[in-house]
Amino acid sequence: MSAPIFFLHNVLNPRSVAIIGASEDTEKFGGRVMKFLLKHGFKGSVLPVNPAAASILGIPAYARIEDAPGPIDVALIAVPGKQLRTAVEACGKARVAACVVLAADFAEAGADGAKRQDDLVVIARRHGMRLIGPNCLGFINPALRLALTSSVALAVEPMPVGNIGLVSQSGSIMAALISHAHDMGTGFSVAAAVGNQADLESCDFIEYFLADPATHAICAYIEGLKDGARFLDLAARCRAAGKPLLVVKAGHSEAGTRITRSHTASLAGSAAAWTAACHEHAVVLLDDPEALIQCADFLIRFGAPRGDGVAAMSPSGGTIAITADRLAASGLRLAQLAQTTQRALHEIVPVTRPANPLDVGGLARDAGLTSARDCYQLLAADPDTGLVLIVVATTPQLDAKVRLWAELAVTHGKPTVILLTPGALVDSARAILRELHCPYTNRMDDALRVVKAAINYGAALRLLPTTASIPDNFGEVAAYCAPAPALTESETKQLLSLAGIAVTRDQQVKTSADAVAAARVLGYPVVLKLSSRTLTHKSDVGGVALDLRNDDEVINAWRRIAARLASVEPESVLECVIQPMIMGGIELIIGSRWDPQFGALMMVSAGGIWAETLRDTQCALAPLSAQRALELVRKLRIFPVLAGARGQAGADLDAVVDTIVRVSWLAATLGSRLAELDINPLLAKPPGQGAIALDARATFLYPRTHLSGRFQNKNIWLS
Amino acid sequence: MSAPIFFLHNVLNPRSVAIIGASEDTEKFGGRVMKFLLKHGFKGSVLPVNPAAASILGIPAYARIEDAPGPIDVALIAVPGKQLRTAVEACGKARVAACVVLAADFAEAGADGAKRQDDLVVIARRHGMRLIGPNCLGFINPALRLALTSSVALAVEPMPVGNIGLVSQSGSIMAALISHAHDMGTGFSVAAAVGNQADLESCDFIEYFLADPATHAICAYIEGLKDGARFLDLAARCRAAGKPLLVVKAGHSEAGTRITRSHTASLAGSAAAWTAACHEHAVVLLDDPEALIQCADFLIRFGAPRGDGVAAMSPSGGTIAITADRLAASGLRLAQLAQTTQRALHEIVPVTRPANPLDVGGLARDAGLTSARDCYQLLAADPDTGLVLIVVATTPQLDAKVRLWAELAVTHGKPTVILLTPGALVDSARAILRELHCPYTNRMDDALRVVKAAINYGAALRLLPTTASIPDNFGEVAAYCAPAPALTESETKQLLSLAGIAVTRDQQVKTSADAVAAARVLGYPVVLKLSSRTLTHKSDVGGVALDLRNDDEVINAWRRIAARLASVEPESVLECVIQPMIMGGIELIIGSRWDPQFGALMMVSAGGIWAETLRDTQCALAPLSAQRALELVRKLRIFPVLAGARGQAGADLDAVVDTIVRVSWLAATLGSRLAELDINPLLAKPPGQGAIALDARATFLYPRTHLSGRFQNKNIWLS
Repeated sequence: MSAPIFFLHNVLNPRSVAIIGASEDTEKFGGRVMKFLLKHGFKGSVLPVNPAAASILGIPAYARIEDAPGPIDVALIAVPGKQLRTAVEACGKARVAACVVLAADFAEAGADGAKRQDDLVVIARRHGMRLIGPNCLGFINPALRLALTSSVALAVEPMPVGNIGLVSQSGSIMAALISHAHDMGTGFSVAAAVGNQADLESCDFIEYFLADPATHAICAYIEGLKDGARFLDLAARCRAAGKPLLVVKAGHSEAGTRITRSHTASLAGSAAAWTAACHEHAVVLLDDPEALIQCADFLIRFGAPRGDGVAAMSPSGGTIAITADRLAASGLRLAQLAQTTQRALHEIVPVTRPANPLDVGGLARDAGLTSARDCYQLLAADPDTGLVLIVVATTPQLDAKVRLWAELAVTHGKPTVILLTPGALVDSARAILRELHCPYTNRMDDALRVVKAAINYGAALRLLPTTASIPDNFGEVAAYCAPAPALTESETKQLLSLAGIAVTRDQQVKTSADAVAAARVLGYPVVLKLSSRTLTHKSDVGGVALDLRNDDEVINAWRRIAARLASVEPESVLECVIQPMIMGGIELIIGSRWDPQFGALMMVSAGGIWAETLRDTQCALAPLSAQRALELVRKLRIFPVLAGARGQAGADLDAVVDTIVRVSWLAATLGSRLAELDINPLLAKPPGQGAIALDARATFLYPRTHLSGRFQNKNIWLS
Repeated sequence: MSAPIFFLHNVLNPRSVAIIGASEDTEKFGGRVMKFLLKHGFKGSVLPVNPAAASILGIPAYARIEDAPGPIDVALIAVPGKQLRTAVEACGKARVAACVVLAADFAEAGADGAKRQDDLVVIARRHGMRLIGPNCLGFINPALRLALTSSVALAVEPMPVGNIGLVSQSGSIMAALISHAHDMGTGFSVAAAVGNQADLESCDFIEYFLADPATHAICAYIEGLKDGARFLDLAARCRAAGKPLLVVKAGHSEAGTRITRSHTASLAGSAAAWTAACHEHAVVLLDDPEALIQCADFLIRFGAPRGDGVAAMSPSGGTIAITADRLAASGLRLAQLAQTTQRALHEIVPVTRPANPLDVGGLARDAGLTSARDCYQLLAADPDTGLVLIVVATTPQLDAKVRLWAELAVTHGKPTVILLTPGALVDSARAILRELHCPYTNRMDDALRVVKAAINYGAALRLLPTTASIPDNFGEVAAYCAPAPALTESETKQLLSLAGIAVTRDQQVKTSADAVAAARVLGYPVVLKLSSRTLTHKSDVGGVALDLRNDDEVINAWRRIAARLASVEPESVLECVIQPMIMGGIELIIGSRWDPQFGALMMVSAGGIWAETLRDTQCALAPLSAQRALELVRKLRIFPVLAGARGQAGADLDAVVDTIVRVSWLAATLGSRLAELDINPLLAKPPGQGAIALDARATFLYPRTHLSGRFQNKNIWLS
């Protein structure tokens, strides 16, 4: 149940807050919350609730929430676990709009905890009250001087006010980011820690931030989504609104997934689906929480670069050499400066130095500031420069140069990443940058992350969403009814044919004599394969015989397969398919998976013996336009082979793209019913000769389990 | 000319220093140098030289260096470029032991500058005086309170005393590291910036540090080596002495290489050769200067881990989830904790949480310190734990926990990487760690770099150097005399045969009739190839015809090749080779390159159409033992295919390894004469069936140019 944003506005910008379990003992949650609430100077009404105190820290206290004057926009419940249920019930009765529940030991602790958590939600719903948490740390609204949290991050003053909206499933990560925002001179519209998301969840906050004029960029630390489709809708709206959405998603590894389950009872979801979904919706996906605010701060200040060319400069020759190496290792592209730019730069620096990256060190001291300015302006103005990277190292007049560069950057708005390589030695330059509200970084890793995120975000914004339209000759797939959960090869190929995909002509045979007869009709050489609903990995059990050239070879192969089947599944009756042996071409794997968070996911991989070795796979959400399908193919490491590198024939890319588009429509049309589909291999023949599915398998899912959110009710792709 | 280490000891630990061009004006080099020298309180004698002042900053000054009382251990020359030659000459006459030359505009500025630089060296040599620089920033010896540099890094006090020896070709990088060492509570025995290395060079300092008892780890920022063989000798001695050698090498990218040339006139050398050389000599090769001191500090404190299993813990569930993802993305291995360890941990933390990485947050407050201690000790004591990674996030009793963990780590010596994720909020914990001399990091990137560097260093130390011995049936390669710089395919195969490598039976033919006759003798199918000394990339010019099955196909192929040759080299007379067509197997490329810094370099790659696409290459210094050759093959991404993945036949690994070993001995034996050799492809047949060179080419180099250092005089591999 999503929250109306005006409702959430009232909760996050409350006029009155109640603290259930308020205390003067800062060793207790209710004590720390009261201390931070008063210390930061919240101007609204504060209502401490404590049955044993007339006042807390000088504020009149109430024995019961019902006694406090309403309306109460939000109550923070800081009582221990056993009294929690009663406290929530009381808040509901007192018509509190929303409760923040700090306590842990709910869904993240197993089935019993999940029951207790559901119980809280039922109580809240009964009263029309909403919950933040449990297992969370509350939120801050720095512009209101509101600290409604027990986090020790609030020990620093003042609260960092700014234009970043943060929602985090981890209280500790929120705390670290509050601390860093404070140090870097940036801050938040609202920062909220939502824990187990029993009721209000990350997407509710993202939707609030999207509408909130004080929020210019949205950051989220996510362990699991309650509703993937809603997240994608919001991402599309953020993109349309030009409000960057930046996400760190935990649980991309197997160990990480186990932890998200034990931490906030979140199902991490597939890393491939996350990466594909974020790429397509211009969501900046990062691997590091602190990078969230560094990148958000940069995008708020400069917006997205208009191109991917990087112009780098430093007053240190060694540092710029390292910078060149690191940019290359990160796959970033140095701007190709125009001849006029290069000539102008070489009137300032010796011609023996490269123009980009540019070493601006060791120039005449009296011309130091002028040359620092001119070099920056020349680099920034070059048509191929999307972004300038200034790596500040020790140099004469360092503070003056840094001030100059930052002023030029913020005035002219050319995206400029500033990295300061020394430590506290140059803290005066850091203070200048904070004063000018010019973002900076202290480590090359962070500078490169910001450069990459900004460039990728810019590219994603320029990538117009292409409309995928149903391909020609796409049959009645929507009405398809699978005969069983696991289709045989022949059944899968029938389904592929229905979608207009070329498949081999297969003959189903039940005896070796039938096999020989079929082979003669098809013409030698042929392939003989075990046909089984249960043994879908045929080659692993020796169920495939390739390149059979005559009757004897077919009969011998039949015997071998029969013997293998007898050893693996003694009670099965052998059935096979016989197919023409098709050679000459490049093998690919084209497949789809149903992802419970994001729906139908397409996968394109290198095939053949290289498939598992190379892990050369590209993914995208289905359905795909031909343009997007080609983009996937181009990103494969084996693309040069497909394109015909070094005099090779290459592959019929049109046919490959058409197959991908058709499979994507198949997956999108069948929706949650199709758990997975693999064409393995698709043989891509030389240009003009097509592509053909040599083998394939599919698994259908009955009943519809593992589905979340809106996907349960409708197929959003076709609506 | 390398420097005797006792000589360098006297220079770096001087009793008396002269400043030529001393001044009271801190806008001048000679002013800043004097200011820092006095400010840090050097106890030896300071001799300012200035023709126009009786004293500088209260110290008696001398008009000429000859007037100053000797012996003078080191003089820093801070006069402008035009007076430099005279100043160096005067120092030589005054029997100064060594000069530091700050001025730039020498070899890095082109040919004229190189001449001026050579000139300085000639003058110094005439007087038996040594030079540091030019284009450098001098050095510091913090234990002596000696700052002999103009670097503004010396504005911070006190100078960071410690056990890291640093030599850097960049003064600015030295400055940044001095600043960071100061901030992190670590420091240097000596830190020196050597610039253009006209005379004394990085290896002289490494050799000094190796002998210096105050230096426990050696860090170097290198743009180019003057003598690769000497560097490898020193690396081997560092490894034997258990003194870690850590290097950041600039110029790994094309843009980086251009800059090292313009910065310190250094030739960067091949990145592949550097990586191979460092791997084999247990040199910790890093991509980031600050990481040098972070990793050195860690290795000084804890030594190398005994295994590669990482046990990670954090008081934040979100942070430990991120940690798990980042460890996985870095290819690091989580320790597989013993059942007993897991059971003991689950008496402290809920069983719903994974044991590694371990979330130690949200435990009962009164047991907080006890459980923090017990969890650390259980993780550290597990037999599979090589290293513990503690990711500190906000938590109750944070300072007390950090103190406890650090004390346990430094007392028991279990390598422990501590990362603090919040900012200034937890500076009190940072102060505790500095007080305990326990290294820490502030960013996950840095923590993972330290973890990886420490684990790789430990693995490199355990990797016993294997002695490569000349293979059996290795012919008289040393006496081989190449008929021309570029060998033909047949000539190259003769050379390979001499080294005991299997090659195809080739027939040289000059007419199509000869070709048909040869094909009949060899037996169809055959391959016909252009044989040319100039066109060595035969397939690029259409000079290869595969799988010819009868006389007609041979005649047609001859005509096609003749036509192609006529279009490319009209005046050439066609010659071809005819070979049996061999099928069935996996193609590899085995090659060698002569590297001017490190000698013969072996390269092993995936072959066939995948070669250029996959860039799946492993390199090592020649010659190789069979064990080392197998290690290279195992590291190829295509190794699973060679090993016979998913029911494939796989390759004869013994034969592949034998071929690599033989090529490596070929390259090592021929030394600088063999510029490059490629077997492309080597066809690796299924196990037991051998490997055979289908095609090959080699280039010899006459006369011996591009050789540096000792390689000019002898073949170190065979001495």
